[in-house]
Amino acid sequence: MKDVALLAGVALKTVSRVVNEEPGVNPATAVRVREAIERLGYRRNEGARLLRSGRTASIGLVIEDVGDPFYSGLFRAVEDVARRHGSLVFAGSSGEDPVRERELVLAFCARRVDGLVVVPAGEDHAYLGPELAAGMGVVFADRPAGNLAADTVLVDNRGGARAGTAHLISYGHRRIAWLGDSPAIFTAAERLRGYRTALAEAGLPYDPCLVASGATTTEAARAALDRMSALADPPTAIFTGNGRATIAALRALGPRRYALAGFDDFEPADLLGVTVVAQDPVRLGHTAAGLLFARLAGDRDAPREIVLPTRLIPRGSAERPPA
Amino acid sequence: MKDVALLAGVALKTVSRVVNEEPGVNPATAVRVREAIERLGYRRNEGARLLRSGRTASIGLVIEDVGDPFYSGLFRAVEDVARRHGSLVFAGSSGEDPVRERELVLAFCARRVDGLVVVPAGEDHAYLGPELAAGMGVVFADRPAGNLAADTVLVDNRGGARAGTAHLISYGHRRIAWLGDSPAIFTAAERLRGYRTALAEAGLPYDPCLVASGATTTEAARAALDRMSALADPPTAIFTGNGRATIAALRALGPRRYALAGFDDFEPADLLGVTVVAQDPVRLGHTAAGLLFARLAGDRDAPREIVLPTRLIPRGSAERPPA
Repeated sequence: MKDVALLAGVALKTVSRVVNEEPGVNPATAVRVREAIERLGYRRNEGARLLRSGRTASIGLVIEDVGDPFYSGLFRAVEDVARRHGSLVFAGSSGEDPVRERELVLAFCARRVDGLVVVPAGEDHAYLGPELAAGMGVVFADRPAGNLAADTVLVDNRGGARAGTAHLISYGHRRIAWLGDSPAIFTAAERLRGYRTALAEAGLPYDPCLVASGATTTEAARAALDRMSALADPPTAIFTGNGRATIAALRALGPRRYALAGFDDFEPADLLGVTVVAQDPVRLGHTAAGLLFARLAGDRDAPREIVLPTRLIPRGSAERPPA
Repeated sequence: MKDVALLAGVALKTVSRVVNEEPGVNPATAVRVREAIERLGYRRNEGARLLRSGRTASIGLVIEDVGDPFYSGLFRAVEDVARRHGSLVFAGSSGEDPVRERELVLAFCARRVDGLVVVPAGEDHAYLGPELAAGMGVVFADRPAGNLAADTVLVDNRGGARAGTAHLISYGHRRIAWLGDSPAIFTAAERLRGYRTALAEAGLPYDPCLVASGATTTEAARAALDRMSALADPPTAIFTGNGRATIAALRALGPRRYALAGFDDFEPADLLGVTVVAQDPVRLGHTAAGLLFARLAGDRDAPREIVLPTRLIPRGSAERPPA
């Protein structure tokens, strides 16, 4: 700024007025200052200014994997809302590791983000108590916080899995395999509960031999289906617990003519004719970021929990009787 | 910090020593300070500390769309490299808008990021000259910078499209349609050049009636294919210029039995049996971020340009003669 003042032949205070768009500067002088700024490549240090204001116009987003289509859709929605509020987004991947989640969250806090949207990997978020008490906005998305009262946006995982499984049952299937993520993950556990509820409601027994948790790779899905096919009473249909498990199961099916429905829509499931229970990552991100910026705007109501619905999309893979 | 000093019954300087892990503090005193920190929920203001150090341990990433699978794969790779260097990532979507690209870049610069990885939407990056001169690291990925000498990592778009088109020609196709993005986008223009090169090398004429630029939605692809099918000499094969165009063309094909190859691999192209020219977004991100952190570590060599290869993956959709 001193160099700008020197080159423009004005006082330091005048440069400051021009940069901060304060009144009281002769227009010709302002032009001279701007030219000097341009020639010297001067940039205002936003960091220092924001530190004084107490806000950084930035938020932090912790998701499982910034490269995963579900979470990157959520990210895009959070970014769109943040942009409307003039805020930038730090984003990072927890990789389902509670330690990494906490590291990222605290690193964002150390950068003094105004707020956080967190898809939690861990189950204990008491460590965020001081930040919440200090007025930082924190919203949990996709999974609830542990040991912390905070705004939360979830999806009706149980209801969606129940509807998908019931859909298969309605076509006459009585032996339905479950392939999904580890039930250590909140969403996977909820979906497995929905699957069991649908079986119970149809008077069908729950058979652990038909459940493969952690079968989200092609190899694991193939091993699970090989094992189940060899049963005396093999499955005739599969319900998959997320998009990765659906693709893994499709790759592993081979000549087996099992009906299939899966949790999570994915592009291009329509071209593959795959029936899915769709959740909406964009709506999840919009809702979570909307709650966050409402808090930052002064909303002091008790923490809210919002549960978003799912939608069954029949496309052919599930709509057939047992082979 | 004053509250911590009061609660621990020590001088402010002692708290500062403990927080900054400086020597000269009695271990028992240090424990007392840490307990006070824990009870009060005190967090070090990383912003102020980093401002003094001149580094912010953060980088900015500008991509076309954080929600697009190609760019989110690139993001994940950049994040992995940044993490190894203890750095956080601001990320934002330009949406192919040069004004938004510049807004994001300058907003990241105003937060004093240590460096930038930019997939440019615009064609003039002279505005980044002052940042480069001031020692900020800037690497362009996927597309080159305009009016600025900077490190750049590209993909062999022309060679890849040429190989994909030649592959279709090798199965006897002489009328090959092009469906892709607008040639205003660098990568689309390069791929269209590769397509034309392959035609010329096979002695085939370039027919503008077979070229649909901007056909990356199902509607646009359907309109283009309907128009081309009605030609006296319709196409027997399609080369698509990116993943979105490939999916759009597959949806728009209907009963038409055209052979098809596309630029960009996508999940699950294997299940659809789609032949692709794959580029590697993870390698692109790793390479770009690697160059960036080499600059930040003091590399002062002349700007580099690295061109990554593509890979043809035959899966059945292209490997057949004209219907």
